[in-house]
Amino acid sequence: MADRIPVPRDRENDYSAEAAAARRAFAHEQTGVDLEHVGSFSVDPATLSGNVEHFLGVAQVPIGLAGPLLVNGEHAQGEFYVPLATAEGTLVASYNRGMRLLHEAGGVTVTVVDDHMQRAPAFLFDSAREARTFGEWLVENFAAIKEVAESTTSTGKLQDIEQYSAGRILYTRFNYTTGDAAGQNLTGKATQAACHWIVSQHAPIERFFLESNFATDKKTSQVNVLRTRGKRVIAEATIPNELLQRVMRSDSRLMYRARQVSNLGGFMAGVNNNGAHSANGITAMFIATGQDAANVAESSAALVYAELREDDAYYFSITIPSLIVATYGGGTHLATQRECLELLGCYGSDRVRKFAEIVAATVLCGELSLGSAIVAEEWVDAHDLYGRNRR
Amino acid sequence: MADRIPVPRDRENDYSAEAAAARRAFAHEQTGVDLEHVGSFSVDPATLSGNVEHFLGVAQVPIGLAGPLLVNGEHAQGEFYVPLATAEGTLVASYNRGMRLLHEAGGVTVTVVDDHMQRAPAFLFDSAREARTFGEWLVENFAAIKEVAESTTSTGKLQDIEQYSAGRILYTRFNYTTGDAAGQNLTGKATQAACHWIVSQHAPIERFFLESNFATDKKTSQVNVLRTRGKRVIAEATIPNELLQRVMRSDSRLMYRARQVSNLGGFMAGVNNNGAHSANGITAMFIATGQDAANVAESSAALVYAELREDDAYYFSITIPSLIVATYGGGTHLATQRECLELLGCYGSDRVRKFAEIVAATVLCGELSLGSAIVAEEWVDAHDLYGRNRR
Amino acid sequence: MADRIPVPRDRENDYSAEAAAARRAFAHEQTGVDLEHVGSFSVDPATLSGNVEHFLGVAQVPIGLAGPLLVNGEHAQGEFYVPLATAEGTLVASYNRGMRLLHEAGGVTVTVVDDHMQRAPAFLFDSAREARTFGEWLVENFAAIKEVAESTTSTGKLQDIEQYSAGRILYTRFNYTTGDAAGQNLTGKATQAACHWIVSQHAPIERFFLESNFATDKKTSQVNVLRTRGKRVIAEATIPNELLQRVMRSDSRLMYRARQVSNLGGFMAGVNNNGAHSANGITAMFIATGQDAANVAESSAALVYAELREDDAYYFSITIPSLIVATYGGGTHLATQRECLELLGCYGSDRVRKFAEIVAATVLCGELSLGSAIVAEEWVDAHDLYGRNRR
Amino acid sequence: MADRIPVPRDRENDYSAEAAAARRAFAHEQTGVDLEHVGSFSVDPATLSGNVEHFLGVAQVPIGLAGPLLVNGEHAQGEFYVPLATAEGTLVASYNRGMRLLHEAGGVTVTVVDDHMQRAPAFLFDSAREARTFGEWLVENFAAIKEVAESTTSTGKLQDIEQYSAGRILYTRFNYTTGDAAGQNLTGKATQAACHWIVSQHAPIERFFLESNFATDKKTSQVNVLRTRGKRVIAEATIPNELLQRVMRSDSRLMYRARQVSNLGGFMAGVNNNGAHSANGITAMFIATGQDAANVAESSAALVYAELREDDAYYFSITIPSLIVATYGGGTHLATQRECLELLGCYGSDRVRKFAEIVAATVLCGELSLGSAIVAEEWVDAHDLYGRNRR
Repeated sequence: MADRIPVPRDRENDYSAEAAAARRAFAHEQTGVDLEHVGSFSVDPATLSGNVEHFLGVAQVPIGLAGPLLVNGEHAQGEFYVPLATAEGTLVASYNRGMRLLHEAGGVTVTVVDDHMQRAPAFLFDSAREARTFGEWLVENFAAIKEVAESTTSTGKLQDIEQYSAGRILYTRFNYTTGDAAGQNLTGKATQAACHWIVSQHAPIERFFLESNFATDKKTSQVNVLRTRGKRVIAEATIPNELLQRVMRSDSRLMYRARQVSNLGGFMAGVNNNGAHSANGITAMFIATGQDAANVAESSAALVYAELREDDAYYFSITIPSLIVATYGGGTHLATQRECLELLGCYGSDRVRKFAEIVAATVLCGELSLGSAIVAEEWVDAHDLYGRNRR
Repeated sequence: MADRIPVPRDRENDYSAEAAAARRAFAHEQTGVDLEHVGSFSVDPATLSGNVEHFLGVAQVPIGLAGPLLVNGEHAQGEFYVPLATAEGTLVASYNRGMRLLHEAGGVTVTVVDDHMQRAPAFLFDSAREARTFGEWLVENFAAIKEVAESTTSTGKLQDIEQYSAGRILYTRFNYTTGDAAGQNLTGKATQAACHWIVSQHAPIERFFLESNFATDKKTSQVNVLRTRGKRVIAEATIPNELLQRVMRSDSRLMYRARQVSNLGGFMAGVNNNGAHSANGITAMFIATGQDAANVAESSAALVYAELREDDAYYFSITIPSLIVATYGGGTHLATQRECLELLGCYGSDRVRKFAEIVAATVLCGELSLGSAIVAEEWVDAHDLYGRNRR
Repeated sequence: MADRIPVPRDRENDYSAEAAAARRAFAHEQTGVDLEHVGSFSVDPATLSGNVEHFLGVAQVPIGLAGPLLVNGEHAQGEFYVPLATAEGTLVASYNRGMRLLHEAGGVTVTVVDDHMQRAPAFLFDSAREARTFGEWLVENFAAIKEVAESTTSTGKLQDIEQYSAGRILYTRFNYTTGDAAGQNLTGKATQAACHWIVSQHAPIERFFLESNFATDKKTSQVNVLRTRGKRVIAEATIPNELLQRVMRSDSRLMYRARQVSNLGGFMAGVNNNGAHSANGITAMFIATGQDAANVAESSAALVYAELREDDAYYFSITIPSLIVATYGGGTHLATQRECLELLGCYGSDRVRKFAEIVAATVLCGELSLGSAIVAEEWVDAHDLYGRNRR
Repeated sequence: MADRIPVPRDRENDYSAEAAAARRAFAHEQTGVDLEHVGSFSVDPATLSGNVEHFLGVAQVPIGLAGPLLVNGEHAQGEFYVPLATAEGTLVASYNRGMRLLHEAGGVTVTVVDDHMQRAPAFLFDSAREARTFGEWLVENFAAIKEVAESTTSTGKLQDIEQYSAGRILYTRFNYTTGDAAGQNLTGKATQAACHWIVSQHAPIERFFLESNFATDKKTSQVNVLRTRGKRVIAEATIPNELLQRVMRSDSRLMYRARQVSNLGGFMAGVNNNGAHSANGITAMFIATGQDAANVAESSAALVYAELREDDAYYFSITIPSLIVATYGGGTHLATQRECLELLGCYGSDRVRKFAEIVAATVLCGELSLGSAIVAEEWVDAHDLYGRNRR
């Protein structure tokens, strides 16, 4: 085999237009492909040093604007126009239609009911009995552990340490509030410091692993559905059937019947979400606003609960138990991403719960839109009309 | 409440730079925010008519280049430079490091073992007994159903119809091969046609729903882990311990021990993936190449299986049971997205399995990179170094 | 430590009253406990040689009689009096009450919709690609494999071999019909023979394991909920609200509302059964009739689907996807167990589906009984009255 | 249809030999079947009044004696002879063989790491926000709630109230220690009293349901695997390979390899237990000792964790997260059941953890026995030899 040729780097300053151009030239040399559009960007490469390595250029992901979305949150109140970055035809139209319905219905009520990010170190002992003793020690020494963990961060606060035992291992979840950051990094650093202190204090720990598939980062899990990762947000609305009939050409009774069939199908399938397609809205908002879209893995989990009321009004709620969002850190400060956060009034400090509320409200609009369409059998037709770039 | 002001549309031609500018002006008017960077794009709005509604501008997502990735696939063979669109510091560096390791180890062997996209209509009957009779009828009339379904598409082929009964409902999965498209739309259209024909032929169907949470689109599920949605791809490699020690400052024995703890943690957590972070690589490739990133919900599922060999070499495999990818349709034809596919030699027809192989090979590199780092306790430190934009 | 003293055996004839008495004497010697009641039995020890080792005596489990149960099955038709072996106060009363309700409602309609027992050998290869090739070979050679497997059994018939790939392993499920036996043993023997033949024919199989946690024997699993283990049985009924009100002091509208809350609770909990307590009836019938009560692990899975009809009638169905029952083999021939099967007209050949129908009908009665009670808040009171031996 | 003929009851004294005989006569009249063996029992019907209704006679379930089992528990220490009630050939022999192995290995170390029984009432509010407020109120008023709950029971102690929110519902778990009783009834009564008090104090509760499929009684669930129902017990041992080779004709390296395949198979299958067959030992002990065998649904869950040590010794552990056992109440006082508890020194007060330890130690022996056999390919042969009553 020929020698391995690594991607070129500029050791002096790798975050420059020149370094990016050099890599595009390298790519052209290796593959013959001209990265013209990838090289067309307005973001300043110098701002990307904590966000990407081997910067080459950008993906231009189209943004559609949906709204107005009417939100009755504790942090988000009033109308919002929501940027959705997607290449899936009908997505923006579908969410927009749901927003129109919910606007007429008086808006979406949203509540953040829980909020923490975690790391989940696992500690190994000689036997389960020693692991149990250690668990008691953890409870007794919580204040000291909290102090060590919080010494590494200005914003993270250690709330509690959950314990789950199996064999000679104690799995834990160190739960933190993390301000406006999503917090995976600060909780990692804080928990590592805590672990090192713990190991120095509690004699017989054979070993610990900072990660043990119990957090569960970038993966959906029942433990996160139950115990929350990021924000646990609940969006609710009650929609008169007259509105469903007029705006959506649908009917609450049909939608409720379809919901029963969906609930059972999802339960038998072993799904992580008994709703319709919350990942669509979440992903589109995540890409637009600089969230980590890989967290769609966790954030796609949802719990839908609906009721058909006496007057045929439709109460509909969706609970997102692991919504991982930030208005600070990560990709939120980048050029287009920041503009999209600003569009929602969500850039900067003390905005993350507001943002979480807007995301959940958007999700609910999309659920009712697709839920209506399925019943109306308009679903494939709608795709046919808008999605004509697909086979 | 003030009147609801919808997002403006140009009824003549909504896919133009002018229409987009008008919407940015509208957004400015409503919120005071200047969407300067969002409005900086090279993609031609006229090409977006099947991809987005209410086009406003673009999200510029930074792309880093990793590689060379050495792949021993059936479709992808040789070296590839992989574009990763992300704003998460260390991600590109981590995957790149894994690619270096696997290059030295002789590359990643990848196999697509299954391939189909499905729609999952549910049929309701008077009782379970009639549902069972209908199931027998479906088997007997498969050829005719196949003909009807395939009459709606030039590329989709109906492979089989799986049946799952519960109560008076028969849930089905119509499985199709879909060429180079991901196929959610073509299978929707084909299955709807099939359902209408079925209802016209088989008398006592009370009702059917084209979707029933059994497909399960944009949601992870056990049924998809078991029965495949999109491509089922398996990436494998055997890495000498000498390499792990030298390149990664890690050790196969430590990594294998950590794997046992992770396996148990994940099993107790009820996770959809006993690996480390496949969603990271998948999402970054999906955004770069115009895949539907909302499918990360499904595509984040994975099954890791590893072995410590007699000579301490480390056999590592990852199975992605629901990798949903396309090299045609959706966002694949867009300006930057197409260039990124071309960079991999994956734009156009008969390329989708090649692309699936490259994605899976990339994922494996990332698993070994993070897996090494966890053991080496370098993980938080590495994040500290590269990820300094985060708290 | 003192020498280990094994349980005494009679090497000539260990299945005699004398051998049992010798063991009770031994137990007395070791522990001082007099096993007077354990030693009181009418079953002939000579009949136990395939059922138990180191026979000591019996557990006397009280049987209560419930009924009449009115069944509209394909095999079970008419009224049955059902023996329930249990020590849980209120259980028999609760099921009996449900049977009264369903009798007035016209009986329970039951349908066996699927029927097979499986073994799940796993085959290991050098790589996933060879595993895939082997999978194709399995399809091509199905007829020959079937012949080998069936040569070991007079009743087992190999229906198909399902394939599930992961890493370099091909997991399979060999599905058999097994006549009136539950079939775990005959399928084990047949599959082992098949595996040995396969290994002799297909060169590069590194190793196979006859069991791989994919069957999944004595454990509940999503794969069995989806793909059936034993009988997949569906019991249904539609109950006028007037009956629920008069007989159960309950109400269909309340029950339906409670069902929604239960569905969501169960989904969030990650439960294997969205019903109330099917394991109660199943276990009591299993113990009475000589089924393997350890299979309650699998047989406790259930899928409830209910509807509130226009006239407030309550359609209720329960699907048991892994009901493992026999009317031949195992404990079915024992003294009391056989009598209980005879009581149901289910002893001997060609009775197993009839028995499965009666079990499922019984289960449905119990679901509606407890479901009514929960709504009526009579539940704890009822336990208080009947269950007074408990704290 | 002919008139419905209910099972006869003696309104004066239904718990007598005469009443039982009358029901057997009735059964004979209805079905022609003679319940001779069912009518052969030594238990006094007068003792059954809280255990069964419509008492007819007994199921005689054969008991085999296994042992000695060597236990290193905190409550159970030394050798035990274990009664196993089963009709499954090879079960007693298999467990007995495992007990021999573990005896030579120095015994099974067992630790009860958690212990509580729960009820899981769900509370409904106007909206999620009010549910959240109520959750805060629950925390503030815990002491008062605890007092009300505990006023209904002499042994139950309310430990904590867990909260899980979804939509406008707050699901809770009221966790209690329950002394030597399994505690389903006492926790039901205590929680009902608590709920009535709560509703009287906290104004806007729309409704509560005492059960909501979140406990999850008679059903396995991830929430119980994570959060414990009954006892969380961990059994461990380290077995020299020499012993596995000599006693079991097996090998730790082979067993460890098989374990990896089983772990993956179970994970892909969505199983509630990555071990072999813990339900077998648990069910046999439950029936022998008067436990509620329907709880096998929950108690069948298990988490196996194993290690291959440097010297090829095999560390093996099994965690049973929902072992529901009692040494008081339920069926524990019945004639044969009490004798079997006495045989283990587990009848009466302050014995329940001792009993839990013995059960878990027994389970571990069975896991290693079957685990050895699978590798040794002796499994089907062993069944063939002992299980000859089956097809």
